[in-house]
Amino acid sequence: MKILVLNAGSSSLKYQLIDMEGEKLLAKGLVERIGIEGSKITQKAHGEQIVIEQPMKTHTDGIQLMLKALLDPEKGALKSMDEIGAVGHRVLHGGEAFTASVLVNEEVKNAIKANIPLGPLHNPANLMGIEACEKVMPNTPNVAVFDTAFHQTMPPKAYLYGVPMEYYERLHVRRYGFHGTSHRYVSKRACEFLGLDRSKTRVITCHLGNGSSLAAVENGKCVDTSMGITPLEGVLMGTRSGSMDPAVVQYIANNDHLSVDEVLNILNKKSGLLGISGLSSDMRDIDDAADGGNERAITAREMLIYGIRKYIGAYTAAMNGVDVIVFTAGIGENGDALRARIMEGFEYIGAKLDSSRNNGCRSEAIISTDDSKVKIVVIPTDEEIVIARDTLCIVTGKPIE
Amino acid sequence: MKILVLNAGSSSLKYQLIDMEGEKLLAKGLVERIGIEGSKITQKAHGEQIVIEQPMKTHTDGIQLMLKALLDPEKGALKSMDEIGAVGHRVLHGGEAFTASVLVNEEVKNAIKANIPLGPLHNPANLMGIEACEKVMPNTPNVAVFDTAFHQTMPPKAYLYGVPMEYYERLHVRRYGFHGTSHRYVSKRACEFLGLDRSKTRVITCHLGNGSSLAAVENGKCVDTSMGITPLEGVLMGTRSGSMDPAVVQYIANNDHLSVDEVLNILNKKSGLLGISGLSSDMRDIDDAADGGNERAITAREMLIYGIRKYIGAYTAAMNGVDVIVFTAGIGENGDALRARIMEGFEYIGAKLDSSRNNGCRSEAIISTDDSKVKIVVIPTDEEIVIARDTLCIVTGKPIE
Repeated sequence: MKILVLNAGSSSLKYQLIDMEGEKLLAKGLVERIGIEGSKITQKAHGEQIVIEQPMKTHTDGIQLMLKALLDPEKGALKSMDEIGAVGHRVLHGGEAFTASVLVNEEVKNAIKANIPLGPLHNPANLMGIEACEKVMPNTPNVAVFDTAFHQTMPPKAYLYGVPMEYYERLHVRRYGFHGTSHRYVSKRACEFLGLDRSKTRVITCHLGNGSSLAAVENGKCVDTSMGITPLEGVLMGTRSGSMDPAVVQYIANNDHLSVDEVLNILNKKSGLLGISGLSSDMRDIDDAADGGNERAITAREMLIYGIRKYIGAYTAAMNGVDVIVFTAGIGENGDALRARIMEGFEYIGAKLDSSRNNGCRSEAIISTDDSKVKIVVIPTDEEIVIARDTLCIVTGKPIE
Repeated sequence: MKILVLNAGSSSLKYQLIDMEGEKLLAKGLVERIGIEGSKITQKAHGEQIVIEQPMKTHTDGIQLMLKALLDPEKGALKSMDEIGAVGHRVLHGGEAFTASVLVNEEVKNAIKANIPLGPLHNPANLMGIEACEKVMPNTPNVAVFDTAFHQTMPPKAYLYGVPMEYYERLHVRRYGFHGTSHRYVSKRACEFLGLDRSKTRVITCHLGNGSSLAAVENGKCVDTSMGITPLEGVLMGTRSGSMDPAVVQYIANNDHLSVDEVLNILNKKSGLLGISGLSSDMRDIDDAADGGNERAITAREMLIYGIRKYIGAYTAAMNGVDVIVFTAGIGENGDALRARIMEGFEYIGAKLDSSRNNGCRSEAIISTDDSKVKIVVIPTDEEIVIARDTLCIVTGKPIE
């Protein structure tokens, strides 16, 4: 079966067409600037690129153009729309309603809608993507795969905040966590790769990219994660501040006469690596500047490393030890020097990086020494394949792995 | 020399008179409800109690009444006011201006004033206490001992938040930490007690009371602590929430149409053990209810234990290991069952609690097993004696230890 994987943003559609026989990527594309001047689609299939610049008013227009590109007789990947067996949609926020991926029906759409207050930027876009597919491909089933679902196994001690209980009960204020599809994939893949039984293995997954989060995965189940009710909490990110005293919000709001929304906008968009360095939100720029002696870039890098180290320590305590530490996503997969700094001095938990294995490593590999009790691995993440696999399982009635 | 130790609140004065020859407590008292109906003083000296109910309009009135009680010919502790060699004042917020205790002069008072935005509730009261003493005892030197001073050795990676650097530079937004006098005292005392050289010892101090904070003390210097720009950050407390996604402030404010000050008031006054349990901010009540099967009390206790465990894990990572873990303050000194739960499963760092030593232990003691690589100890805190010692050193020109 061929499965279309769709990640719908407010003005964009990222997609992959995957042939599940052999899990082969058939086509990959991006529809951008939907509803904005200069909208276009870029697609690659079989090494051939298509670029079409064409006004698109709605996500439905975007899906139609995507199908046109996929069906292109020369540079496309499909002969007929009917070859698409199902569409798997990435959905940001499932709240507490979804602990796994589901076939989309009215009830599911209503639940995604109900979670808009928790995911105000993403859920409406994800829903537009689903509804555009329903319109353009009315006979193709849609599956929703939630960024939050994997984290729903967290116990209350990990997901509750110390606020009055009524805010949890009435407003659903709690830690949800994100990047769930990635944490789930790499924690499982790491165990397979190492030949370990994941139902008896304690894994810490470090998803380090422009947005970063860590998760503690005990015996295959997420028991804690660093992102919270929104993706703002946790370690320093590209433009997000990560954790802090909540009183900072008050302090900045009152001193600068800003609204709480304005302060949160600063914490989400102008903070993190960008805010500390004053240079860039991109870790490669920070690394270059820090290596060149830029003090603020050095500080930003130190903060990132230190924050990740503290989470690794905390999650090790949460699980009474750790067996595997996984690095994934842009920075996690490519930042070998950063990984080395993060893992310094963790001999006390039995984790020892092998520099020769780590240096230059950018693909699936063990980077700990042979005698390291804790295995340290790099596992490139692949959220699309998880979405495609879940979708296949659901539409063929098989249990999700 | 006799030293008066003063902790001035907005409507109260807690005091101790200590004879530094042998560090003997001569008198201890509380002036309460200053400027409010029903103001009174309660003092104990040589086993004799004095209670005087008398209207007091200002802190100066309070200090005058305190002196009257101390000079009481029958139940007092002094023959003449001149016997008081110096007054040591607890001051909450020294900002970045003070890394140690100092003799009070105009410049120091201005610096305490300058830090009022950071300690809006406490610093004005602390200043009133100082100025009342200057007025009533003009020839007696005053020393300021700051709650923040011990934490000033933290490196930038530990004290900076991930907000744009201008907020640190312009508004002094950073982690300061509190309970510094306690963390300093117990970390030092623990090393003395264990016969360890504190310049080569990594200590985690758990000050667990109605307000709770942890600190990582490496070779005698604080390298990290859990409280932040205010005492709100860190683990769950009596009525304070502890850490959370800063977006929670926005979420509650926008959903319930509250101002940021109103939300922060909830996080400081109605959250924590009280907010989760719905019962009490007092750990003894939570313990009783939890032991009786109350679900929300059980959850509150689990959250507290789990939060402390994660900080212990994080600070162990921060120091590449740990040699000593100290429990202090109300809950830390008396909560033996809680200590046992906190220390469960830390064998992986070489820390093993001895239940028979821990059970019922409420005073200075080692509570780890003989073969535990990490020593776990209970050290009753004594902030007053530190304030008195610092004051003595400063007025006699000796270096502060």
